[in-house]
Amino acid sequence: MDTAPKTSPDTAIASLGQARIPTPLRHPRYVDDSRPLSLVMTSEELAELDNDSLLLEFEKAGPRERLYFDPPKTKCAIVTCGGLCPGINDVIRAIVMESHYHYGVRTVLGIRNGLRGFIPKYRYDLVELTPQSVSDIHQFGGTILGSSRGPQDPAEIVDALERLNISVLFVIGGDGTMRAAKAIMEEVEARRRKIAVIGIPKTIDNDINFITRTFGFDTAVEKATEAIQCAHVEATGMDMGVGLVKLMGREAGFIAAQATLAMQEVNFLLVPEQPFELDGENGLLMALERRLLARGHALVVCAEGAGRSLLEEEKGTDASGNAVLGDICGLIARRAREHFDSRGLEMNMKFIDPSYIIRSVPANANDRVYCGFLGQHAVHAAMAGKTGMVVTQIKTSMVHLPLDLVTSKKRFLNIDSDYWSSVMEATGQGAYFRKK
Amino acid sequence: MDTAPKTSPDTAIASLGQARIPTPLRHPRYVDDSRPLSLVMTSEELAELDNDSLLLEFEKAGPRERLYFDPPKTKCAIVTCGGLCPGINDVIRAIVMESHYHYGVRTVLGIRNGLRGFIPKYRYDLVELTPQSVSDIHQFGGTILGSSRGPQDPAEIVDALERLNISVLFVIGGDGTMRAAKAIMEEVEARRRKIAVIGIPKTIDNDINFITRTFGFDTAVEKATEAIQCAHVEATGMDMGVGLVKLMGREAGFIAAQATLAMQEVNFLLVPEQPFELDGENGLLMALERRLLARGHALVVCAEGAGRSLLEEEKGTDASGNAVLGDICGLIARRAREHFDSRGLEMNMKFIDPSYIIRSVPANANDRVYCGFLGQHAVHAAMAGKTGMVVTQIKTSMVHLPLDLVTSKKRFLNIDSDYWSSVMEATGQGAYFRKK
Amino acid sequence: MDTAPKTSPDTAIASLGQARIPTPLRHPRYVDDSRPLSLVMTSEELAELDNDSLLLEFEKAGPRERLYFDPPKTKCAIVTCGGLCPGINDVIRAIVMESHYHYGVRTVLGIRNGLRGFIPKYRYDLVELTPQSVSDIHQFGGTILGSSRGPQDPAEIVDALERLNISVLFVIGGDGTMRAAKAIMEEVEARRRKIAVIGIPKTIDNDINFITRTFGFDTAVEKATEAIQCAHVEATGMDMGVGLVKLMGREAGFIAAQATLAMQEVNFLLVPEQPFELDGENGLLMALERRLLARGHALVVCAEGAGRSLLEEEKGTDASGNAVLGDICGLIARRAREHFDSRGLEMNMKFIDPSYIIRSVPANANDRVYCGFLGQHAVHAAMAGKTGMVVTQIKTSMVHLPLDLVTSKKRFLNIDSDYWSSVMEATGQGAYFRKK
Amino acid sequence: MDTAPKTSPDTAIASLGQARIPTPLRHPRYVDDSRPLSLVMTSEELAELDNDSLLLEFEKAGPRERLYFDPPKTKCAIVTCGGLCPGINDVIRAIVMESHYHYGVRTVLGIRNGLRGFIPKYRYDLVELTPQSVSDIHQFGGTILGSSRGPQDPAEIVDALERLNISVLFVIGGDGTMRAAKAIMEEVEARRRKIAVIGIPKTIDNDINFITRTFGFDTAVEKATEAIQCAHVEATGMDMGVGLVKLMGREAGFIAAQATLAMQEVNFLLVPEQPFELDGENGLLMALERRLLARGHALVVCAEGAGRSLLEEEKGTDASGNAVLGDICGLIARRAREHFDSRGLEMNMKFIDPSYIIRSVPANANDRVYCGFLGQHAVHAAMAGKTGMVVTQIKTSMVHLPLDLVTSKKRFLNIDSDYWSSVMEATGQGAYFRKK
Repeated sequence: MDTAPKTSPDTAIASLGQARIPTPLRHPRYVDDSRPLSLVMTSEELAELDNDSLLLEFEKAGPRERLYFDPPKTKCAIVTCGGLCPGINDVIRAIVMESHYHYGVRTVLGIRNGLRGFIPKYRYDLVELTPQSVSDIHQFGGTILGSSRGPQDPAEIVDALERLNISVLFVIGGDGTMRAAKAIMEEVEARRRKIAVIGIPKTIDNDINFITRTFGFDTAVEKATEAIQCAHVEATGMDMGVGLVKLMGREAGFIAAQATLAMQEVNFLLVPEQPFELDGENGLLMALERRLLARGHALVVCAEGAGRSLLEEEKGTDASGNAVLGDICGLIARRAREHFDSRGLEMNMKFIDPSYIIRSVPANANDRVYCGFLGQHAVHAAMAGKTGMVVTQIKTSMVHLPLDLVTSKKRFLNIDSDYWSSVMEATGQGAYFRKK
Repeated sequence: MDTAPKTSPDTAIASLGQARIPTPLRHPRYVDDSRPLSLVMTSEELAELDNDSLLLEFEKAGPRERLYFDPPKTKCAIVTCGGLCPGINDVIRAIVMESHYHYGVRTVLGIRNGLRGFIPKYRYDLVELTPQSVSDIHQFGGTILGSSRGPQDPAEIVDALERLNISVLFVIGGDGTMRAAKAIMEEVEARRRKIAVIGIPKTIDNDINFITRTFGFDTAVEKATEAIQCAHVEATGMDMGVGLVKLMGREAGFIAAQATLAMQEVNFLLVPEQPFELDGENGLLMALERRLLARGHALVVCAEGAGRSLLEEEKGTDASGNAVLGDICGLIARRAREHFDSRGLEMNMKFIDPSYIIRSVPANANDRVYCGFLGQHAVHAAMAGKTGMVVTQIKTSMVHLPLDLVTSKKRFLNIDSDYWSSVMEATGQGAYFRKK
Repeated sequence: MDTAPKTSPDTAIASLGQARIPTPLRHPRYVDDSRPLSLVMTSEELAELDNDSLLLEFEKAGPRERLYFDPPKTKCAIVTCGGLCPGINDVIRAIVMESHYHYGVRTVLGIRNGLRGFIPKYRYDLVELTPQSVSDIHQFGGTILGSSRGPQDPAEIVDALERLNISVLFVIGGDGTMRAAKAIMEEVEARRRKIAVIGIPKTIDNDINFITRTFGFDTAVEKATEAIQCAHVEATGMDMGVGLVKLMGREAGFIAAQATLAMQEVNFLLVPEQPFELDGENGLLMALERRLLARGHALVVCAEGAGRSLLEEEKGTDASGNAVLGDICGLIARRAREHFDSRGLEMNMKFIDPSYIIRSVPANANDRVYCGFLGQHAVHAAMAGKTGMVVTQIKTSMVHLPLDLVTSKKRFLNIDSDYWSSVMEATGQGAYFRKK
Repeated sequence: MDTAPKTSPDTAIASLGQARIPTPLRHPRYVDDSRPLSLVMTSEELAELDNDSLLLEFEKAGPRERLYFDPPKTKCAIVTCGGLCPGINDVIRAIVMESHYHYGVRTVLGIRNGLRGFIPKYRYDLVELTPQSVSDIHQFGGTILGSSRGPQDPAEIVDALERLNISVLFVIGGDGTMRAAKAIMEEVEARRRKIAVIGIPKTIDNDINFITRTFGFDTAVEKATEAIQCAHVEATGMDMGVGLVKLMGREAGFIAAQATLAMQEVNFLLVPEQPFELDGENGLLMALERRLLARGHALVVCAEGAGRSLLEEEKGTDASGNAVLGDICGLIARRAREHFDSRGLEMNMKFIDPSYIIRSVPANANDRVYCGFLGQHAVHAAMAGKTGMVVTQIKTSMVHLPLDLVTSKKRFLNIDSDYWSSVMEATGQGAYFRKK
């Protein structure tokens, strides 16, 4: 095994200072920061590295024997940002339960409506989160704190953190939010304050760099398969029926690919990572025609970010254009209509867009367990004085990663992998396309 | 009680001839056609009648002691038409099981792809339905026979029935299909053939005249509430969030109304039966604004046929127009966007259209039981030589109704009823509109 | 139609006094108590009457134009008794919402842990129920108030009602609880107090006299079918496999019968209303043997109260006895084991008892709508000064019934009905028994 | 990192001979057997090894460029053994689809009723499995092939394999079945036949040595949480209520532990790996009493194999004894009843045993994906001539493991791990026990 990577990412975690306070946890096993976790990452797992595999060391998540913050004097805050995703409430609940019951933290504040909840010009809105108030929230989708999009001034946020006397800020959000967390941490450092900033990465698309699995993904796939099953029923319920399902995935098709594996009925899968053409002998429209003539029905699953180049072409040729841009399924539906009409063929398409139904449900058991670990380990890290980091799972281990590492680039489906081969096998779509 | 109706509908059922053959059923209780069922129908139930209530007599559904058709010599056919609806496969299964196991009918044919399955120019496609082949089909949504829309020539259909030597045709479909069934029956009569035509009315909208409940409606409401719950989570997940859910109901808002009662979180319910305005002090947009300013979020449920007058106006003022017509939710979304922008107010709308997800699921237990009765009773009626009729439930009784009666007009939500009052109470929307 | 009943039940409702206060509801349609609702009840529906059908008059449920209680001065209380049932929280929620939002009642108290919550020697525990505190409770099964079994002294209860200055007591419970409600009402009358006692009948078994449908029943059937499906999978997963499912129904087999109709795979249905033998040529064991030899697997659904006579016999022959009494499924399992062993035949039985899983789930959409109506109409009745009554649905109408009427006797499956014939057809069990 | 293990297990896979036939798969990436997969296994993961971590090499699963068997001449067989588990039908389906569509194998036989399906004295029953016949089977729980328990003579099985001219036998089953597979392989070797024996390990308890995750486990946990939620509702629905849930896990408590993490409401978790006492100050009964007095309700989850020592004691003191042995929940229920009676305290216990409901449901999306991989990779391995091995996932990679390795010992919950600490944190049960 070649263990000499071309570029070995920096996995060191920042700390607010020395942890001197004995933990109140009676925990049989504390993490010893001097013994990092070694993991073999293959090049499939780290598509950016071009050597075959790599032995990397990570800081393990878990309770430390010594704390940096004295729990009874520590005030925590939680903020949730960006779009909804199954499991946000589970993470909130786990942070509150762990802080309160196991560490003895007395105050956990919930910031309402995302980062804007820190900004005076908006409704400045706080809610105290207690074990009792969060005890049932995991039964509901969404976020009890509300959310918002877009950045806010880090200076104003740190003003608010100081004014509220907050020692630990837990930030649940996506890519952009993790960058905001980084900016907040830098502002805190510039002011030489002792405030820990801990991220819990959230993206239903599962496309955060270096992170094997984001919470809510498993639930999203489960719900996506229900929509695909309905589209299959619709497609087979009419002669020359086509079911077209739009799934989440602006830049990466993970949900669409995984749901395709779970529902082997999908005939065509379209993802951002694999460009395709509509027209011509090797285009989707002719492939769809071949399938319909052969089998009488077809099931198409399309990630929302697929076919970007087609939308850009479209824009070029269409004067008004912008109504179309961004809606690949609308384009496919229109062009398919035209194609089959021009060929004198029947075609009955049913379009299903289940996005909000997928992302707003409560987490399933698997995601609940994961969200519980994320929340617990976020508290362990924060109490030990770690900052500028996220908690996450790599392979089967819970670890800390620096914010830099997860925000530096996105993660994509590797279409040169065994996984993708299995997905393509599941669809059998190769049989309907004609190579030039 | 005033039992003298202004117009008493004709509930007599046609028959192919005298039933002389002893039934093979060992059934403790046979229906005696000389003793009809009396039901008190209130004016709310029969909105077309303007007296207060009415004692009507109906032919009861159920097995007869004497059959018209000799089961071992009888060949049956089933055809399914129009859009999908939960429970079609349950009805097919019940017809096959009842015919085969209880009467001893040897052949039940399934006609593929709706009425076009009878027409030679289409793929002429039959499948034999046996107890074994249908034993698990109720676990799946849709129709195993496929479906199609639109009328076909009754003469060609009866040609096919004769060619195939079919004695009983079971027709599962909506309003238009029941009219087609009537035309087939008339063609059969004109040719003096002995072919029974039995309808099982299907409409997820629940809007067939005289019929208290169509199969699949209960399941559709159940699934609709899941979509509404998601929209509620989305609306409350963002500051100034609006969830907009489009539900089925081209001419009648039964699903939307019932789902609103089941999910008491709905704030605005829009149905075809109650016109509304968008603009002005008493318009939806100002009502929505009042709600958002008061509570920070709003949940709107809209039947697809609501606001027809608004779409027609829209068409008048807009040169291209036709893209908009028929899409009330698109209109609301666009106008709401303009309204809140012009008022300088934030508004975050999430639109959910769960239609195909609702109609393509398997039936729930309640609908399964009902579909089982419909199928059984359709066979009882057919074997006794009844024709030109449908089986259905009125109040809590299974009865026969002439095809005329169910196709003569549609059924609508009575917005002058206790039921509608309860729906409006559930939304509380009255509080946000201003009467002129 | 013969409208002269042998015994026409008394359906008149008691009242606390004249209703003089104008309602705050702006309701388009008020119920006029001088115009009762007429319903045709068939003898199948009223098994106690031996004429063929009967035109009965009932007091309609709904808002009255005049109230007896002045809402701002009225304090209400809710108590939930007996075993769990889906929908209790929905009824609680509807009472609170209706009282508060539509009538302007300021205080609704929840009594904890059933009737014992009134009794000083127990933990005397009250909780104020507000629209906010109940807004999400319908998402959970069970009762947020807790429950208990057994009667309490009516005098002590009325002492508590007086001490708490309560004007309306809503009692949610079963048969015994309705008798307790009657006793409370009589104690109130004896003291000449003006306290309304309104019952909402709860029994998952659906066996309350005169009441077509109790809340939670539809949900229970839905969940029961899931258990039966599992038993079917188990039975067919092994050679000579038998699935045995125990369902609720101490004295009436409604759940078992309805679930059998919904899941047509059931081969043997055992209910309290139809005694059966285990031994002999016409006994269950030989019938089961015939089925297993013919088909290789069997699915048995047994209501918990079935086969009572067998358990009593068993007791006679067994010295210790009492461990066995009350457990028909245990008896069947043991005897079947012995039977097949003695015949040298394989038999693999899997027993499923889903009772608590069935009764503790949240209500489905259909039951939610019904529970909403029950709660609303209970408040309408109470505010108008009605007492000693329950709200319920008869056929498709919401009505008031006197407590006397619903507690006078139980309701049973009519095994001489069309419904039961359909159930027996669904099982086909007749084919495996041998008549003597 | 210390990479020198004390005992490094042998991970080499046996082969029938040299693979010379070009694969028909057009697969971009073939596995090169000369490049094994390296994985770091921590001591938590390999509890049998006492060094801290270990770099192990495994044979990767996946398609090979050269086959041993010529697909059109290859006849495969599938047999399913032991108890049901979600996903068996998914594995069968994936094997059939992969063999047929991707390799061009023409015949896949299904052996009915487990290994006894090979034995002439039983009903000797085969079914041909085609893509069409298996296309919907993943929608159903259980196994379409049926199953049986217990060993059969390997010689008779290999006689049958020869007689049927089978080249590849896929064996889906548990621990004992994998030992049977080993014996079959040895009999094949002794006869110098060229028959590949490929195992797909099945155990809902997730307790197979070296295997991170067995299929169906995730689904089982999901269903278990539903039962626990019901028990929670029951426990909180009565004063002094106790919900007791029995979950699968004869020797290992994985399902119970994972479901406890997913449903944070569990107060006491009992697993085979951690003995406990009933009596005394540190016993379960006093802990339960403390909990009930403090909080009014309690939720206990018990793996079926927990408390074995208690059952053995019990047997000693009880003359008849054997009725009790094996039923820890019965023992707990009886002793708790006695304990609370003797203390003059109320206690209302509701017992839920959802076992068959958990194991007989269809697989969820996550397990479906996994079962798809297992089936595909089993075919890849077989066609390349591998034998005496299983396909499985270790960490996040699909690999081959020798049958020896997986049958040599069982896997248990490591109660000295971070995972177990999190489980104990989730219950908080430590607070109610008193250390001696």
